[in-house]
Amino acid sequence: MAEAEKLTFSASLAAVLEPHLPPPPTRSPNPAPSTSPTRPFVTLTFATSLDSSLSLAPGVRTRLSGPASKAMTHHLRSRHSAILIGVSTLLADDPGLNCRLAGLSGLTGQPRPIILDPHARWTPRPSDKVLALCRAGAGLAPFVLTGVRVDQIPPEHVRLLEDHGGKYIHVVAAAAAVPGASGADVGVGVGVGADARLRFSWRDILGVLLAEEGLASVMVEGGGQVINSLLDPANHDLVDAVIVTIAPTWLGRGGVVVSPERVVDEGGTPSAAARLCSVSWLPLGEDVVLCGRLQAR
Amino acid sequence: MAEAEKLTFSASLAAVLEPHLPPPPTRSPNPAPSTSPTRPFVTLTFATSLDSSLSLAPGVRTRLSGPASKAMTHHLRSRHSAILIGVSTLLADDPGLNCRLAGLSGLTGQPRPIILDPHARWTPRPSDKVLALCRAGAGLAPFVLTGVRVDQIPPEHVRLLEDHGGKYIHVVAAAAAVPGASGADVGVGVGVGADARLRFSWRDILGVLLAEEGLASVMVEGGGQVINSLLDPANHDLVDAVIVTIAPTWLGRGGVVVSPERVVDEGGTPSAAARLCSVSWLPLGEDVVLCGRLQAR
Repeated sequence: MAEAEKLTFSASLAAVLEPHLPPPPTRSPNPAPSTSPTRPFVTLTFATSLDSSLSLAPGVRTRLSGPASKAMTHHLRSRHSAILIGVSTLLADDPGLNCRLAGLSGLTGQPRPIILDPHARWTPRPSDKVLALCRAGAGLAPFVLTGVRVDQIPPEHVRLLEDHGGKYIHVVAAAAAVPGASGADVGVGVGVGADARLRFSWRDILGVLLAEEGLASVMVEGGGQVINSLLDPANHDLVDAVIVTIAPTWLGRGGVVVSPERVVDEGGTPSAAARLCSVSWLPLGEDVVLCGRLQAR
Repeated sequence: MAEAEKLTFSASLAAVLEPHLPPPPTRSPNPAPSTSPTRPFVTLTFATSLDSSLSLAPGVRTRLSGPASKAMTHHLRSRHSAILIGVSTLLADDPGLNCRLAGLSGLTGQPRPIILDPHARWTPRPSDKVLALCRAGAGLAPFVLTGVRVDQIPPEHVRLLEDHGGKYIHVVAAAAAVPGASGADVGVGVGVGADARLRFSWRDILGVLLAEEGLASVMVEGGGQVINSLLDPANHDLVDAVIVTIAPTWLGRGGVVVSPERVVDEGGTPSAAARLCSVSWLPLGEDVVLCGRLQAR
């Protein structure tokens, strides 16, 4: 990759973010997981408009935040063992999922891309940016978490991923999602249709990432379903830090919106679904960056 | 009103807001309007959650922002000749619509409350907070802009308002709103039902406020329909300043959302409905205040 494409992030801004971040990732191969934590440190991060849209419409990649915010995203990637997205975001954006901070050498500082793909909808191709960057030595190959048994995935897909150093990981779906249903175990469904959705439990996903893959920290980047499921009160205890970039624009109705399911008490009275505490607001170019922790209810 | 209920706003924060504000209002009765402007200085201001909700549900008053934001709102009120809300907000919140900054004496610094009430849905009662504050010498009586001819409004309503120093002002509706229709003259409808809505033109409303009432600046506070109509590109040239307070909470789906109608080009490609320029972000307690101007498209 040309050095001109490399990003730099201000050390003073990095210092402001530091209290919200996990310990720097270790890079030893397959580190023995500590016996105490049962899941990785989880940072939820994304950029929205003022009307809480991630993009103008499903599948439309939308440039929201400015260059300083982009550099911040890559700084955050360098500070996590893994970055996680849903398959819809992979299919819509063809993202690189690597870290392009200046000064990184080799694969040091490169996070492991994790794709949540319950139905194995992604057809990996050599031209996919995440695989091309991997071949160029500029990023790691993805691990794909899927509800499909690996022996039922086309062998050429399995081989292509493995040739790059990636793999499929079978995760047992917690339940088939029932549209409109809600319960204590709110997972994430990224399926092919409302009637054919598998639903992963976040506890299962995070357990696999730490216990089986030794990934001690994961930065969850999107898309809308993934973010909204972590903002559900049932999952708040799984999230250690939230970092939201807000751009001073209204995309208008019809976008992909970050807004969790509403919360109502037994009498039907609504209350706020989520609130941050230990809040910092950090103006960054025309945008603002909000850091905080989800407040216990 | 007890002095304990008075608010104070930091002089240093006031200095940061100053470039976004109109000249201080003059308090001479019925000042001769300048010949040059055809409308008042318009400041659009409101507080939302991170998911751009004004409240948890229609008609549910929701405390979003902290005490410093509240003091800022009252500072802004002191800096405008008028504050404007839609009738739905009046009916839902029974707001005081006065300025409770410490140090004000008499009615100096009190803005004129303006209610957009196309169908004269409000039944004024002596117990309404806006009228009670007026009788206590702590605020001005409202002017109600309505599409109903004043001789068709119950005389006791007219008398009650006039006894307090307020009045009804008949504004000719620009058009009956056609649900789903959109055009160059995007006004604001605050009606009794989708099939019976009158629609005011913002140009007519603002023209009346300056030319007939001598109100040189107006702070538009809500609710959702009123705000969204001013964020429509057809009305951007009518807005001089936008001041949004954002609280670090997600209210969840089903709230009253600030998000303008989407904008699409002839080929159906969506683009951002509105963007701010000359942006400042001002952390204020747990909240952030965003000031800016709507960018010309």
